[in-house]
Amino acid sequence: MVFNQSDLSQLDQAHRRNLMNLISGVKSAHLIGTLNKEGVSNLGVFNSVVHIGANPPLLGFIQRPLTVERQTYSNIKDRGVYTINAISSEIVDAAHQCSAKYEDGISEFDATGLNEFLLDGFAAPFVKESPIKMGLRFIEEHLIQANGCVLVVGQIEFLSIELGQVTDDGFFSLEELKLVGIGGLDSYFNIELIERKGFARP
Amino acid sequence: MVFNQSDLSQLDQAHRRNLMNLISGVKSAHLIGTLNKEGVSNLGVFNSVVHIGANPPLLGFIQRPLTVERQTYSNIKDRGVYTINAISSEIVDAAHQCSAKYEDGISEFDATGLNEFLLDGFAAPFVKESPIKMGLRFIEEHLIQANGCVLVVGQIEFLSIELGQVTDDGFFSLEELKLVGIGGLDSYFNIELIERKGFARP
Repeated sequence: MVFNQSDLSQLDQAHRRNLMNLISGVKSAHLIGTLNKEGVSNLGVFNSVVHIGANPPLLGFIQRPLTVERQTYSNIKDRGVYTINAISSEIVDAAHQCSAKYEDGISEFDATGLNEFLLDGFAAPFVKESPIKMGLRFIEEHLIQANGCVLVVGQIEFLSIELGQVTDDGFFSLEELKLVGIGGLDSYFNIELIERKGFARP
Repeated sequence: MVFNQSDLSQLDQAHRRNLMNLISGVKSAHLIGTLNKEGVSNLGVFNSVVHIGANPPLLGFIQRPLTVERQTYSNIKDRGVYTINAISSEIVDAAHQCSAKYEDGISEFDATGLNEFLLDGFAAPFVKESPIKMGLRFIEEHLIQANGCVLVVGQIEFLSIELGQVTDDGFFSLEELKLVGIGGLDSYFNIELIERKGFARP
């Protein structure tokens, strides 16, 4: 199937939203954990976490436009810290349920049965069941002029991986941790290693 | 395994690079196609393509710091357009080989055996073998102050999906197209659908 610019602009809204979310391929699947001013925990599903740098260790994610209240964004700006927790196949149902719109004052932890893991002095909750937990401090943000989304960049201050060890060169198996990927807005995939290819040379 | 900020800063460089690239989880796998001023095609492997918006249809990707010449970035700024091509398991070897550092003047198409697909009036080459081909026009960029990376945002002007149809609500199977995900810098994964979950409600 082929679409030009005019075809894309003429799709109906739901069709275009699904299609445009699918074509970017397999995305990372995370729960972002935050704490609001009143001390209520929040978890949101994000499929846009992206590696930005190793030294300092930086991750970014795309926050949808701030035309309505975005609890994750507000809490990050209020508290200065947040957690990014990888979704595994073992928690995929509870994790997806965190994308439902709960009323203010209801924590997604309470609503879904996921458990909080707290770190002394760090004002954001981790997901206990997540095999890769990261605690980040907000560093900078960039408003995307074209549609009002925001790239939020943070630095990793805490990292926990549910493995006894990683190799000497920093490698471990995402498959062993049962990490899933997301396609579009609501499809989840298991992953199976094809190959670790190594550094390519001409 | 648990790492605090001090542990992370003390890892040796290669270890930290591998580890920090892995912890963001399963990433999308794409070849970005561009054309330089002299008319030589370029293909680069990217694992940072991210959905930014459906209307207008926008994708972003992270360009590593411009401290050395980045052909993809230079060509995009020169030509104003580029292509993003999904990597499937059928072209994963050739695609990864595009990450090798070839001399200026050598096209990764020639070096790897991938074939160009050209669109009249569009100054960037698509990868013929890719099951999802997208042609984009550069829209805006954001310099990440913390480490010199750049978020490049473009609008999709052309889309080709190697399927006869998508459903009425814009859905199709990434698994059927044999799309792969990337873990870290050099691990490729096949995907297997767990479930399409639908819109979550409280």
